[in-house]
Parts: sequence; structure tokens; C-alpha cells
Amino acid sequence: MEIYQIAGYKNSGKTAVTNQLIRYFSAEGFKVGSLKHHGHGGEPDMAERTDSYQHFESGSVVSGVQGEKLTQLTLRMPFGLEALIQLYGKFSLDLLLIEGYKQADYRKIVLIKNEADLSLLQELSNIIAVGTWDVKLVENRNYPIFDMNHLQDNISALADHIRRDFDG
Amino acid sequence: MEIYQIAGYKNSGKTAVTNQLIRYFSAEGFKVGSLKHHGHGGEPDMAERTDSYQHFESGSVVSGVQGEKLTQLTLRMPFGLEALIQLYGKFSLDLLLIEGYKQADYRKIVLIKNEADLSLLQELSNIIAVGTWDVKLVENRNYPIFDMNHLQDNISALADHIRRDFDG
Repeated sequence: MEIYQIAGYKNSGKTAVTNQLIRYFSAEGFKVGSLKHHGHGGEPDMAERTDSYQHFESGSVVSGVQGEKLTQLTLRMPFGLEALIQLYGKFSLDLLLIEGYKQADYRKIVLIKNEADLSLLQELSNIIAVGTWDVKLVENRNYPIFDMNHLQDNISALADHIRRDFDG
Repeated sequence: MEIYQIAGYKNSGKTAVTNQLIRYFSAEGFKVGSLKHHGHGGEPDMAERTDSYQHFESGSVVSGVQGEKLTQLTLRMPFGLEALIQLYGKFSLDLLLIEGYKQADYRKIVLIKNEADLSLLQELSNIIAVGTWDVKLVENRNYPIFDMNHLQDNISALADHIRRDFDG
């Protein structure tokens, strides 16, 4: 399972990039998993009034509901990122895209929205590409750069870059 | 991990019994997990418009969102009950309560709503207790019987029965 992170500050476009990459690699036949950290210290939204929500409310540490094609699990336990990734490892995925968790040490696409974000390029590890709304900000740096203003047009170039990276 | 099923036809009170047992055992300090099958061949309700739903819509086979205390995973892959139980096995649970899946072979509390349901007592395996709205229907059978009309009052007796069962 190849693991890549999409990192950047709030509103830098992480979800858009992650979704486009999921879409691209899924269409290419990859078995893609994704993980994101809920912002603001909150909790994932749950569909209330469902039976699984009732189980959860009653105290289940793990409450699951299986449908025809989908299974949904709600886990009420602390997980480190490593433990979660280990869990993802059970699902025979080709690729895991992680949105956020920018302090983790996996290969990263870092998103730079403005000058204030530039410090991320010093702070974060394992950067393999940079997405930016202002190409001038990051040119002359030693990263492949992708223009976020034309994400749709550039997503296949970014995906190809990731693919070359994990193909070695 | 001890595994018990709550089995019965639709509207026989499975969710009520399951919730009460989750509540009871959780309050007793057990680490309880639960699993139910979504009826009608449908899918678990998902909170739409969330980012994790977007990941899922984009094609993620496993899409997860981690909050402060909760992690929610949506799995788009076929699971047999055994494979799901194996997954639950990773979470160090004391007790797994399974609502439905009545053809499976785990120890069962079977719910009998009316005479038409009585055939379940022949068809299902590993019955350890029967809950019923009409005690006359099932008396003289060789099972501990719990009156569903007074579920709240009887839940600790049912839970004790389960506990004695798994204590040997």
C-alpha cells in the first residue's frame, strides 16, 4: 500500500486535490483508500436517528452497520495515525491518500496558498510536489509545481508524478 | 471476544434488545461492539455533504474520517460476516452483539413476536434464550424466556443469563 499525504493549511484546497486524486486513481483501476482528520477538534458527522447511531449512543465502542455494498464502522477509541494505517492495511489497498496530518512523515503534496504558507516547505518532511495558487511564490524551488488555478487540467500530471514516485 | 446474536423477524424488537444489552454491558465496564445488518437490501445512511462522503463519492474503497474521539470508516467492499468479525477482533472487545444475520451460527437470543415466528426455534442454531411478547407461546419449551413487554425490567436478568453463559 503506497501512502501519500495532501498537506496544507485550512482552505488551501486539500479536499479538492484529494478528491481529484481519488477519482483519477480509482478510474485507473487502483484500489484507493482515504483518510482525513476532522478539523476544529470536532467529530465526524453521523446520520442520526439510524439504528447504528442508536448502538453508538447506547455505548458501543465499535458500532457497525452492513448494507448491500457498504459497511460503516464508528470507532469510539483513540487511534494514532500509525494504528489507523495498520487497520487500512487489512483492506488490500493499492494506495492510501491522507488528507492532513501534516506532521506525519509520509510522502507529501504540500499546498501553498500564499506567502504565509511558505514556511511549510521548511517544516514538513518528504515533500514530493507543491500545489500553489501563485506559481511565482514557489518557482526556483526544487519541487515539481502544480497550478491549483487549473487543478482539473493538472491533476493527471500530478497523478503521473505520484505514480512515477511509487513506481520507483 | 464473546459473540452473541439477537435474532428475529422484522419488528420483533431486535434493536431495542440490542441497545439495552449494549447499555447494560457498557455500564458494567465491558468493551462492547455491535454490528447490524441494514434491512431492505439498502445501505447505511451517510451524512452527506461531509468531506468523508466526498471521498467516498470520488471512489475511495475505504474512506475514513478521524475526529477527536471518534473515527468513522466507510468500506465499499463485500464482507462475509466472518471477515467482519475478524475485523472486530482487532479492537480488543470483550463482547460483540450482532443484531440480525440469523442464519449465522453464534449463540442467540431469539425474539418471538407471534405464533408465525415459532418456526425460528426449529430453524435457528445455538439458541440460549427466547424473548417474547406472549409468554404462553413459548412456555414448556426448553429455553429461558424473557417477557418483552417489560424489557427494561427484564434486561438485567437476560444480561445475567448471557454472562453466565460466557463465564462457562
